[in-house]
Amino acid sequence: MAIRQATSSDHDAIWTILEPMIRAGETYTQPRDMSKKEALEYWFAPEKETFVWEENGAVQGTYFLKPNQQGGGAHVANCGYVTSAAAQGRGIARAMCLHSLERAKQRGFRAMQFNFVVSTNERALNLWLGLGFEVVGRLPGAFHHPEQGFVDALVMYRTLV
Amino acid sequence: MAIRQATSSDHDAIWTILEPMIRAGETYTQPRDMSKKEALEYWFAPEKETFVWEENGAVQGTYFLKPNQQGGGAHVANCGYVTSAAAQGRGIARAMCLHSLERAKQRGFRAMQFNFVVSTNERALNLWLGLGFEVVGRLPGAFHHPEQGFVDALVMYRTLV
Repeated sequence: MAIRQATSSDHDAIWTILEPMIRAGETYTQPRDMSKKEALEYWFAPEKETFVWEENGAVQGTYFLKPNQQGGGAHVANCGYVTSAAAQGRGIARAMCLHSLERAKQRGFRAMQFNFVVSTNERALNLWLGLGFEVVGRLPGAFHHPEQGFVDALVMYRTLV
Repeated sequence: MAIRQATSSDHDAIWTILEPMIRAGETYTQPRDMSKKEALEYWFAPEKETFVWEENGAVQGTYFLKPNQQGGGAHVANCGYVTSAAAQGRGIARAMCLHSLERAKQRGFRAMQFNFVVSTNERALNLWLGLGFEVVGRLPGAFHHPEQGFVDALVMYRTLV
């Protein structure tokens, strides 16, 4: 098992991971009809450092790390993590988050912020709480869940210094 | 006095308003060395509707309105407002915010969110509170103020329905 920087040769594997998450529309705010090209442009945007979690040559997870803001807010990092449907429950998101916290510290970020954790995504919420993130904001009805209608989204934050 | 949609013929006037705000680096998270071209690309980004506040042919304020997120978060609007240094204290930001709330309702947005109100920007904070926004989140030390060092930023939210 290794976490390494993603390259263009990972595009197909990453799309295989991202597509079901985007189509489900339950956890991220990407449009559910987003194309492969749009999704990869988003995931590999110039300001992002993109990683994959790989095992025996198979990519089972991916995450990006970027500054959450520019200028006076550029010392706070932001990340997004997705695990393949087949590899859920094996601690891959946790491993990627721990990796991202180390990488963010290395790069000199002083904190990490998640802008939009859908409140019904309890697995993610509990994982981030267990890794030292706090809920610092609640956005009432800010997410339209395809099954549950308007639900809150949470802002989570963790200091790194 | 009128608030109207901005056009490319407003670029110079808008830059005159944006430049001191960007160079000061006290309220927005744009890089302080941002160029005119970069600033105008940001202010007129494709997802933004951009307005100006004009009086006797002189543009004294400008704001943008956009969806704060895509997909399941696209029903929440986001705005940014800047008043010219010469016209501070005349209620122009207030007039632009009221205009934006109406415009957001017209477009079917259900709420408006400000992601990053610098806590030392008391004039803005009090203005938004007076217009029905609530502080729904506090980001500890998320802004590096050029004079005051690391200060909190606030997440503010107002329902429109």
